[in-house]
Amino acid sequence: MTKKVAIIGAGAVGMTVATYLKRHTDYDVLVFSSDTHTAYSQCGIPFVLEGIISDFPDLVISPPDTFIEMGIDLHLNTKVRQIDAGSKKVMSDSGVFEYDHLLIATGSTPFIPPIPGIDLGGVFTLHTLSDGMDIEAAINNNSKVVVIGANGIGIEVAASLARRGTDITLIENLPQVLPLTLDPDMASFIGQHLISMGIRVMTGTSVDSVNGQQRVESVSAGGETLPADIIIVTSGLKPLTSVAREAGYDIGPTGGIVTDERLRVSMNGEFQDNVYSGGECTQVFDLITGSPVISRLGSAARRMARVIGENLAGKETIYPPTLSPGVVVAGHLVAGSVGITSHTAKVHGINIISGSSKGYTRAGYYPGAKPLFIKLLFSKKRLVGAQVVSGEGVKERIDALSLAIGMGAKVDDLLGWETSYSPPVAMVIDPVTFAVEDAKNKMEGIA
Amino acid sequence: MTKKVAIIGAGAVGMTVATYLKRHTDYDVLVFSSDTHTAYSQCGIPFVLEGIISDFPDLVISPPDTFIEMGIDLHLNTKVRQIDAGSKKVMSDSGVFEYDHLLIATGSTPFIPPIPGIDLGGVFTLHTLSDGMDIEAAINNNSKVVVIGANGIGIEVAASLARRGTDITLIENLPQVLPLTLDPDMASFIGQHLISMGIRVMTGTSVDSVNGQQRVESVSAGGETLPADIIIVTSGLKPLTSVAREAGYDIGPTGGIVTDERLRVSMNGEFQDNVYSGGECTQVFDLITGSPVISRLGSAARRMARVIGENLAGKETIYPPTLSPGVVVAGHLVAGSVGITSHTAKVHGINIISGSSKGYTRAGYYPGAKPLFIKLLFSKKRLVGAQVVSGEGVKERIDALSLAIGMGAKVDDLLGWETSYSPPVAMVIDPVTFAVEDAKNKMEGIA
Repeated sequence: MTKKVAIIGAGAVGMTVATYLKRHTDYDVLVFSSDTHTAYSQCGIPFVLEGIISDFPDLVISPPDTFIEMGIDLHLNTKVRQIDAGSKKVMSDSGVFEYDHLLIATGSTPFIPPIPGIDLGGVFTLHTLSDGMDIEAAINNNSKVVVIGANGIGIEVAASLARRGTDITLIENLPQVLPLTLDPDMASFIGQHLISMGIRVMTGTSVDSVNGQQRVESVSAGGETLPADIIIVTSGLKPLTSVAREAGYDIGPTGGIVTDERLRVSMNGEFQDNVYSGGECTQVFDLITGSPVISRLGSAARRMARVIGENLAGKETIYPPTLSPGVVVAGHLVAGSVGITSHTAKVHGINIISGSSKGYTRAGYYPGAKPLFIKLLFSKKRLVGAQVVSGEGVKERIDALSLAIGMGAKVDDLLGWETSYSPPVAMVIDPVTFAVEDAKNKMEGIA
Repeated sequence: MTKKVAIIGAGAVGMTVATYLKRHTDYDVLVFSSDTHTAYSQCGIPFVLEGIISDFPDLVISPPDTFIEMGIDLHLNTKVRQIDAGSKKVMSDSGVFEYDHLLIATGSTPFIPPIPGIDLGGVFTLHTLSDGMDIEAAINNNSKVVVIGANGIGIEVAASLARRGTDITLIENLPQVLPLTLDPDMASFIGQHLISMGIRVMTGTSVDSVNGQQRVESVSAGGETLPADIIIVTSGLKPLTSVAREAGYDIGPTGGIVTDERLRVSMNGEFQDNVYSGGECTQVFDLITGSPVISRLGSAARRMARVIGENLAGKETIYPPTLSPGVVVAGHLVAGSVGITSHTAKVHGINIISGSSKGYTRAGYYPGAKPLFIKLLFSKKRLVGAQVVSGEGVKERIDALSLAIGMGAKVDDLLGWETSYSPPVAMVIDPVTFAVEDAKNKMEGIA
């Protein structure tokens, strides 16, 4: 009899695995999701709100029909209530289904900070396509918007709405924007740019209350009362694991489902051959610190899906410890980061020597050359973190540095790095070389 | 007494070393050049002709005064006639000078193919700032221009002149454009793009004669007679080594001056402690094939200058075998290459398995996403060559792949490469991953 794979979650992991299995195996594939939509680009939502992308359906990678035509048994708007690991059954709104293999890809849900008034009308999260549509319906050119939380998605939505002319205040608890991915010196370039876009940036500021009757009218923060029609809460995400937890699967210190290097789930410390987890509900390991982490990136989701698909197909593929390189687009600037920050290094007791440089993305005399800021972090001469801010060429440089960290590059490997040049696209020597030289000089006590 | 360094050549190598020595040592520094200008960006000349950069002096990195103020004894418009290695003397138009250390950085001169009529008026090379100025003075909107040679500089000048509306024919002996740096399949994207810009591209075509009385009137090529007012010869460069050769220094099979890994020059097979060579007159080694090569890139020149400067300053720095990553900008496309091509592999008897992909530079739904073509060449699972063509993000990807080759990346290292993502600047998974997977599948006999 044909074996059955039940997949809980129709996001990037769930639908990528489902598709992979239909292409490469003869499993029966069932997918359950409480969402109305199948896999779509969450990361694209700010750019629809900006108006660069015309409509939300553009973000749907493939509509449900595509998957149904592949022969995937797709249950949308369907909550999974319970997993019975013993009898291998999923209890869902659409009935009880047996499975041979299970994939838990339930994703995450926004973390809502416990602020008085946070449940008033006009307070939105920004996580699902429906969230995006709700904000779009509520917003107009006279809206006064407060964004709470200055990590990637908060920055991107603040910048996107500012570009369409909306009045924006961005409030961040910690003393800088992008606190999880950038050092303060690199973050300040982004903070200044947001200010230059007309955004009021309040870092080191906590929100005391959200005020109003039924709908939000103002926000109290930093001793001020800020008028506000719309609040967008981007204070982080928490893994959605209640069904997994209730079924007896182990949950790690990150709040994510514990997995091994094949992304198999454990029960009482024992990894289960037939149960996998992937995506934002899943705990994996950080390459530099070795600590458990949750990788929230779409790119990580796709990589995990590949590993799970191959394992289900009988190939023992592993998901190695992750670096999670990421980029954030804020107006005319892009901020990228990979590996650890100086703060993370400190928390883990890792001694860091850093090297920085400022250069340009083209020859100095070539029109349109954009300033380029690079910061590299070394531990015992090994590259462990990199941050890049510029108007262009950030994603590709972060990718290069991700490869460098992944391959264990030392400062001398990077000194020998030959870079390419043509005036419209490069400086003669890439600024990354100057950042490496700066670090090397510090190591030798020259600088 | 202060030691003297004599430098022959005021290009990227000569002036970078001179500056380095003035900053870090107390040498007396003499520089001789037959040129009127000090170091300038040769690579920028096509873009001045296009009109993107307003004037030729913009390409001069630093004018002579800057160097004179540093205390460099600068002899421009001064030919060095002879080096007396025994008595350590340079005989120049401006007199005889003793030296303790010598740097030969005489550069290269355009190779002029032996075509009947090639010495007529209206035939130009494109190598020095003066060449650029001469072309600018001769050209007008009705000019019919024939460019001979479709390597980097030929492509760039053809594209630049086409953009200002000039009638251009590009003739290349070999059956494709960019024959030294791209495989035929990758070159065809550039060839087609040049055609779409209105350039007539004649590959696999040799020029039989240049015709005219005193000035060129037409070109005979491929059985046709093409009207022409201006011919730009970009058929390659040859090292300028006559002074070095006459002084007794060894010249290698490439025509370049033989050097060791510290870029010291040899005489009768013996490397000289006090004589260096760098830049386009210098023979170095290719990292992949191990063969002697000449690196013609501005970026290589600067790296060599650094090595020579440090050695002169008493630090034993080496110039490792080179990959010479390069990018060429042709209209809206950029072509990049690093390591060896399939043709070079064949010449050296290296078996290659390649992987290719087509993707985009942004999310498919994000406006302005540009097609991106990647080809990777592997030998025994090790990356040995990479080619990228797109409208953006080429230079940085080539740099990443340059680092990968330099660090000895295997196909599995590249499969584990984590890339970053945000819709305005990336696909969820970078297309490089698909090219790696394609190669891996071929290695496993799947594709």
